[in-house]
Parts: sequence; structure tokens; C-alpha cells
Amino acid sequence: MPIPPLTCPRCGTTAEDLSGCAACRAQGVGANPVPPLADLTGFRLADFPGGPWGLPAALPVPGEYAAAVGLGEGGTPNVRIPHGGSAGGELWVKYEGGNPTGSHKDRAMTVGVAAALAAGADTVVAASSGNAGAAAAAYAARAGLRCVVFTTPKVPETLRAQIDALGAVRVVREDFAARNAAMRAAVGRFGWYPLTSFAAPPAGGNGYANEGYKSVAYEIARDFGERVTAVVVPVSRADLLSGIARGFRELRSAGLLARTPRLVAAEASAAAPYAAALARSGRAEQERTTVVDGPSPAFSLGGQRPTWQGLDALWRFDGAALAVPTGEFMAEHRRLGARGLFVEPSSAVAVAAARRWADARGGTVVAIGTATGLKDTASVRAPAAPVPELAELTD
Amino acid sequence: MPIPPLTCPRCGTTAEDLSGCAACRAQGVGANPVPPLADLTGFRLADFPGGPWGLPAALPVPGEYAAAVGLGEGGTPNVRIPHGGSAGGELWVKYEGGNPTGSHKDRAMTVGVAAALAAGADTVVAASSGNAGAAAAAYAARAGLRCVVFTTPKVPETLRAQIDALGAVRVVREDFAARNAAMRAAVGRFGWYPLTSFAAPPAGGNGYANEGYKSVAYEIARDFGERVTAVVVPVSRADLLSGIARGFRELRSAGLLARTPRLVAAEASAAAPYAAALARSGRAEQERTTVVDGPSPAFSLGGQRPTWQGLDALWRFDGAALAVPTGEFMAEHRRLGARGLFVEPSSAVAVAAARRWADARGGTVVAIGTATGLKDTASVRAPAAPVPELAELTD
Repeated sequence: MPIPPLTCPRCGTTAEDLSGCAACRAQGVGANPVPPLADLTGFRLADFPGGPWGLPAALPVPGEYAAAVGLGEGGTPNVRIPHGGSAGGELWVKYEGGNPTGSHKDRAMTVGVAAALAAGADTVVAASSGNAGAAAAAYAARAGLRCVVFTTPKVPETLRAQIDALGAVRVVREDFAARNAAMRAAVGRFGWYPLTSFAAPPAGGNGYANEGYKSVAYEIARDFGERVTAVVVPVSRADLLSGIARGFRELRSAGLLARTPRLVAAEASAAAPYAAALARSGRAEQERTTVVDGPSPAFSLGGQRPTWQGLDALWRFDGAALAVPTGEFMAEHRRLGARGLFVEPSSAVAVAAARRWADARGGTVVAIGTATGLKDTASVRAPAAPVPELAELTD
Repeated sequence: MPIPPLTCPRCGTTAEDLSGCAACRAQGVGANPVPPLADLTGFRLADFPGGPWGLPAALPVPGEYAAAVGLGEGGTPNVRIPHGGSAGGELWVKYEGGNPTGSHKDRAMTVGVAAALAAGADTVVAASSGNAGAAAAAYAARAGLRCVVFTTPKVPETLRAQIDALGAVRVVREDFAARNAAMRAAVGRFGWYPLTSFAAPPAGGNGYANEGYKSVAYEIARDFGERVTAVVVPVSRADLLSGIARGFRELRSAGLLARTPRLVAAEASAAAPYAAALARSGRAEQERTTVVDGPSPAFSLGGQRPTWQGLDALWRFDGAALAVPTGEFMAEHRRLGARGLFVEPSSAVAVAAARRWADARGGTVVAIGTATGLKDTASVRAPAAPVPELAELTD
């Protein structure tokens, strides 16, 4: 099976590389070319085992790569958590921390590395503040490819160790811009195969890899059916949001879901280009939104520009974007811990936004808990309060 | 449904508490009372969804607790890795790091906390060097119970943060003995519900909780059927090994497996009481083995004494115990990373032992990869060697 070409969903141009659509970039818009949507006619949702390789026919890469690149990704659990408000309904966290490297990125990287194999690449490359780099390293190692991760000094120690343990080469640059520039140079000069976004304005990650995220939509549809009213996704380049939207589009086209959920982008207030974009009037304005971003404990989010793919997902699914202040999502982070879920701060951004949504509107709301809290232990500062009885125990 | 009493499998005495069999302890043997084995007649392995709550009828606690304590544990993937030798066969890692807190302990703690709820406890307590404490904290939080974890200064920073994030109270004592003594005092004085082993000689963890490990055997039987020839398990108190053995006994009794695998205990050479025990002649001698233990990067293993439950599992399943030197399992740790699997060093002990077994004997060998490497990043010291092309990239 040849790999299908990628076509820009905004302007229709066939892509020449994996850096995003050059024609749209010339217009100041970061648009990410995609393969054709899959035809899911005849797919039995109830039998879906989960994960990208649970339905190879929906992927733009040959299914026989599954054994070479699979590490058991996907099929993540849904955990219900209490919420308030008078609207009733249910609030769920889909916990992606159970993936092989501990984040949702595994769903994309397993497909992206398969695409790299199909392209005959010997080296894959990622620019990442953490989760994507670890996932790229794991799947490259699984497939026997070299992996180079361009990163910044902000990467938490745990992720640094994970990338090293997985045998990838880490190259540290001083900031996001320098990191992406180094990756761009390496892709151009050595022909290394890019697994993440690296252009400016950002377009999104590898258009083949992102198809792995469609499996999140299939799993939600299998587990909740038509009763899910909203899916809340933390966004930066919006690869995950866009992939989920594409999965729901496929399910809807095949008649497998008569009603699809609204999609909600969750952002840290410190960097909220999607909320800023949706507050503007026309699409041409929204596409070119730029905000000033600041530091945030949700280190894997952030950015000054929305991607076109993220906006498109919101336009198609009656979407909304919620910006959550640091205090609110770090309180959610602690609240989740006190319910048994230790997630990274970015995931807490999504849950805090989903809580607002569920409290106000009810319905069945699913937040994507993108990664385990083990990735970023610096976010945990306060030990629990001691229990009084312990004073009676002498050493 | 009342919770069944626990009976000592060695001497038949009904247990009065959760500290191990007092009658056997008086004989210098750490024996762990257990509930009756479940009758799996009519169980359809092919339909088993995985995890302890995938078959509530096999648990000694009411199935209706599943929603109160479940976080999506179990159902972990099998990842095949290459091996050498002329005997052929297959080497697999069952990756337990995909569990909610990142280790196999979740399977036990979800059941143990359900037993605590059934017992009307308001506080659960664990003595742990890490994984068990994090799992106890998560499931206690999920169920709304207080959790106190007695630990030592050796706990890695990541696990410390995880326990704190999950709202448990950490009490640090200088060493294993002091840690267990503090837990014993708290259980005796406050009636707190114990989820781990704390007696001397060690008997094993909570006899209800350990039933959660039977689900590992069910999953292996579902995924590999009768072709699995050996299951290799890292041991300390041998709760996991014993639970897996009980699962296979149930499957065999119900006629669901005509052939069961051999069970192999994997130990770090620095502390290898099971290998030492099996080298002795009679059971009475084996039960009372004591070794000198030393420090090891496999921090969650270790101990000077075998537990009776671990020996019993080996006796029943034509077992063996392999002691693996530090250099061998840390090389395995790096080799697994270079294949895409980042595990804790204790897991690498099991894989190194399984590799020896598969290289020598062939067959289908499954090693239990007990936890994610994110738990103990200090074990990762060496970054990957740089790739030559990078010298051409200037900053």
C-alpha cells in the first residue's frame, strides 16, 4: 500500500513536505495538510479493541507495521469524577497517562514512526518540551530508527531521563524558537523525518502521525455512544483536538453516530490563542490571531498562535475555547489527586474547563487527561496535612 | 456479601488479623492467610476484559465496589522483544507500567481498598518503598479514605511527589525495620486497615488485596493460552507471584487450561532468598532460609527471607528462582530502553531472568514488567551517544 499524499484542508494544495502548507504559510496561516478521511462503513464500534492499531484500515500507513511499532498504546480508561452545579450530568476523565510512555502522544508517534518506516527514513526527529519527545524516542527505538529530540532547558527532569533511557539523542536549545529552528535545519540538511510541528506560524505535527488520535474519538464513541455531549481537549498545536474531530467526522459520515459531541479547547490563561481567536468575528481574522504568551505550570501547552486545524475542529463541532487561570487549574490538579488521579498540569487545564462546562450545562462531558503526573513532579509541592493520631507514635 | 475469612494455607489456622499467620510466625515462618480459591467454571476467557474487576466473582469483596474504587487498572499490553539462543521461542514483556499509578500494585490496592470499605475502615495504611504506597494512596483517595504511607528516605523523588499528589500522609522512618514497626504500631493502636506486609518474618501483603493479582494470570491465559511455558516474576514478598499462581490454579481447576506455565522467581543477586531457599533440600529448611541482603538499584526488591506464599507458588508450578547480578539487569534495563520500553530496574531483573530462560529453553516466556521507569529516574545516568551529523548544526 503506498502512503497517500497529504492535501491542505484549507486551500487544497498538495503538500510537498511535512512542515505544513507552504501556500497558507505565505498568507500568514499555519495549516496542516492531511490524508483523506477513512471510510468506516461496516466498522463495528462495539468490537473496537482501542488504539490506533485497533482499526488499521483507518490509518494512512500499512497495517502490517503494527507489530514493528506497537507498544500497546490506546484503550485508555474513563474515570468518573464528581462535579457540582444544578444541571446534573456526568464528568469523566479519559486517562491517557496509561499509554506506554505515559501520554496521548503515543497514539500519534506509533503511526508517525510507521510512516517513517514506509518513507525509508533512518532517523526521526522531534521538537518537544517533553511528552512528544519521549513518545518519539520510544517508537523510534521500537522500530530500530535513530531519534533526535530538540528540546529546551525547561524540560522536567523526569522527561529528560525518559528520553535518555529510550536511547534518543537530546539536543538542548535555549528556547522554543531556537529549538524549532534547529529541527528545521536538521530536516532540511539531513533529510531526517519530522514527527512534530516545527514551522512558523505553527501548523501542527506530522499529518500521518496525527491520524493516530482518531482512535480517541472511536474509543469515546464506543464507550459513551451518543450520550457524550462535549469532549474537552487541552490545546497547543491542537493535533489531538484535530485528530479527535477527524475521528468523529468519520464516525458521523459512516452513520455510526447520529449525534456527535461539541468540542471544547482548553487553554491556560497565560497563553490562550484559541479563546482569543473565537472572540473575533470572521474566519480570516480568527486564522491570524496572535496573543502574548506567558509562563505557566502547564508547560506542554502554550503558544502565541492558534493552528488552522484547531480552529477547523472547533468550527465543525460547535466548538468553544475556555481559558483557565493558573489558580483554577492547579486547584483542579490537587482535587484530581485527592480523587486518585495524578495527572500533569496540562491535563488539569482540560478537567477544570470540563468542570466549568458540566457545572453550567450538565450532559456527559469527557475531558482528556493527556499525561501522567509522573512526567512533571515539580508541580507537586505540598505534602498532605498530617493526621492527628500520628503525634502519638513515637519513633 | 460478607467478606470470607482468611485461612493459613500452610497450617489451616483461621487468621485473626492481616499480619500473617500467628501460628506459623511462632515457628519462624512467614505464611500469609488467604481466602478460598474462586470457582471459575463457566468463565469465558476470550471475553475477559482484563483487570481485577473484569471478573468480580473471583474476588473476595462485593463486585458493587468496582465503581467506588476502580481507576481502570489491568488489561496491560504484551510487548515482544528479541532474544538469542538456539532454542527458538518467544520472549514477551507484560507491561504493568500502563496501570493508573504506573505499577502492578494497582491490581492489589483496588481490591484491598474495597476490602477496607467492606470492613468499615476510615484509614488505610501501607509500609512501602514506593509503588505500593503510591497505589494505596490512589485507591484510598478514589474511595474517600485517609491513607498513611510509612516509608524510608530511600524513596525516589518521583514516588514521593506521586504519594503527596494523591493526598496521602507520608511518614518517613530511617529503615525498613523502623518503617514496619511504625506501621505495626499504627495498626495495633488506631485500628488502621493494613494494605501491605508489615510483620517479621514477612508473610506478604493483605490477603484480600493480593487476589487482585490473579487477573494477571487470567490475562496471560487469555492472550497466550496454553503455549506460554514460563512466567517470570520479580519477587520480594512474592505477593504478585503468589497471586499469579492462585490465578493459574483456578484456571486449571475449572478446566480452562490443561497446561499451565512454570513459574520463575527473579531476584537481584544482592538479595536472593528464594534462590537460596530452593538450593536447600527439604521444605522445612527452605521455609526458614535467611540471607544477607545488600543494596541494589532494584530498590523495590530485596529482603532476607522468602515468604511461604512465594515458595508455595514455586513448589506448585515446577518453579525456579534466578538471581541476576546488577550488571546484568542494568544492561537489560538499557537494552529494554533501546527497544522502546522504559521500566523500573526491578522489572529489568525479571526480563533479564526471562531472557536467560528463553535463550536456554525456548518456549513462550512472559516476564512481568512491573512498573514504568518514570518511578525511578535516578537509574538513568547516561545520555545517548551523539549522532555525527549534529556537529554540522551550528547554534
